[in-house]
Amino acid sequence: MRVLVTGVSGFLAPHVARALLEAGHTVVGWDARPPATFIVPVLVGDLLDQVMLSRALTDIDAICHLAGVGDVHLAAAEPIRAVRDNVMATTALVQAATAAGVKRLVFASTWEVYGPPAYQPMDEAHPTQPNNPYSITKLAAERLGENLAQQSGLTFVALRLGTAYGPGMRSSTVIRRFAERARQGQPLLIQGTGRQFRQFTHVSDIAQAFCHALDSAAPAGVYNIASAERVTIEQVAAAAVQYFGGTVQHTAMRAGEPPAATIAVQRARALLGWQATVPFARGIEACFAALRAEQIGSSEITASIAGAPGE
Amino acid sequence: MRVLVTGVSGFLAPHVARALLEAGHTVVGWDARPPATFIVPVLVGDLLDQVMLSRALTDIDAICHLAGVGDVHLAAAEPIRAVRDNVMATTALVQAATAAGVKRLVFASTWEVYGPPAYQPMDEAHPTQPNNPYSITKLAAERLGENLAQQSGLTFVALRLGTAYGPGMRSSTVIRRFAERARQGQPLLIQGTGRQFRQFTHVSDIAQAFCHALDSAAPAGVYNIASAERVTIEQVAAAAVQYFGGTVQHTAMRAGEPPAATIAVQRARALLGWQATVPFARGIEACFAALRAEQIGSSEITASIAGAPGE
Repeated sequence: MRVLVTGVSGFLAPHVARALLEAGHTVVGWDARPPATFIVPVLVGDLLDQVMLSRALTDIDAICHLAGVGDVHLAAAEPIRAVRDNVMATTALVQAATAAGVKRLVFASTWEVYGPPAYQPMDEAHPTQPNNPYSITKLAAERLGENLAQQSGLTFVALRLGTAYGPGMRSSTVIRRFAERARQGQPLLIQGTGRQFRQFTHVSDIAQAFCHALDSAAPAGVYNIASAERVTIEQVAAAAVQYFGGTVQHTAMRAGEPPAATIAVQRARALLGWQATVPFARGIEACFAALRAEQIGSSEITASIAGAPGE
Repeated sequence: MRVLVTGVSGFLAPHVARALLEAGHTVVGWDARPPATFIVPVLVGDLLDQVMLSRALTDIDAICHLAGVGDVHLAAAEPIRAVRDNVMATTALVQAATAAGVKRLVFASTWEVYGPPAYQPMDEAHPTQPNNPYSITKLAAERLGENLAQQSGLTFVALRLGTAYGPGMRSSTVIRRFAERARQGQPLLIQGTGRQFRQFTHVSDIAQAFCHALDSAAPAGVYNIASAERVTIEQVAAAAVQYFGGTVQHTAMRAGEPPAATIAVQRARALLGWQATVPFARGIEACFAALRAEQIGSSEITASIAGAPGE
């Protein structure tokens, strides 16, 4: 299948592109900025550029749409940009996809669209009360995509992703913050009690979910995509201390963090045949190893620049 | 109070502007296009023009925000425009309002944000499942407005308006279609059984709701603004036949029309001190009289152009 993957300069999409390649698909990337590494041919442009977009969709069978503002804090700081990149761009992409005869579009949404839990575990029928610009714009994009795909040949699938982690994750994520402070000999700062949990989901599992959702047998609709394993922030800190050494300190809760809530994972298992397979203990260790390698790499570069002739 | 009213070239906002003037407020209008009649000074511009917007908000105490795509069929035909004009523009306006120290913003939302009824009457706590680009974008704008106003000095009030009618309404509305066909001697076309109902709410009542929502005692939040009276499409047709003469025919249901559902009106009564006061029988007759006067006016213009020298 020929698959367009948007957001390939971000965190998740390169993992999706690689999994698709491994599954034998032909992959074309798209992003507003060029990626650091080109594992597939990449178009660099704005999804609101209708001419470029409709040309890019010629002969495309399916789209994995991961472009957009994926950082809850950035979306809060720049809500107009979040509306543009998450809602308007998705609308433009779905419209262009229906016009071009694309068969299937898999959209990266978030478990945060549910907002405060009315009951737990939160399944896909749980009411949606998103309460920050990130999750509000993701839900609006889901609904517009679903609505515009109706009565067209396009099957629209929204994956409500759990908290993703793995190589390449943003430096603002708790796992990277912990790893970096531990390596620098600084205490790890736990916000609140540390007993708040997340269903941390490894990027390789998330990438597999996109592969499963591309299957022509996968029904349109929304799916929670999360590991069934609940991991507390205390456990993340303990893993970092075990790997890097160091100590832990507690600070005040950060505003805007979604409350801990259990996400139901049955629907994806039943209808997509997907479930998370990477245990957190294994995933986090691989992650710490990659961060250590990355940091050794960047220190070497810094050392080499500092020692360059003429400096 | 100095009040900016957006959307003054549309249907509802001129009624709001007039009611505010009558209540003694100073009113400035805003729209992307110049209005047909200037009952207040009007700024013509794009709400995404940050420089123009921030200058317009100097010394403004409150905003009644009615600009945007208000036609469900136009929003479905041009969803990117609906995202831009309903979601992005509202986000920009709320951001600029918080920065400028505006005290209160009253946003024109719609009862259609609820989607299919889970229970009736639908109160403000009813789950939201909007299922067309108009109501999806209105709900996203509500949520972004509410979210961005938090932790600022801006009180954000969203009025979920019932089906509005009155002088100046769009030609695609059922009341105008009926009136025009009856006047032309064509049968009135009722889609479906005609027993589907709406809580038709007169524009003068809606304008009063905006006035009430501007009161500093009115709490932030969402309010259903609708007449308690349920009127069937059959009753609208009967009123048109009684006023203009004519006959009725039944046709297939139009796709995309929201299902009939009763809207609860208690919250606005309790917290805003507002309730609809215009009985449908009186409102519709005034409406038909205005349409007759308007059409006599336009036939005279047509006749005068057709008879102009040199034509």
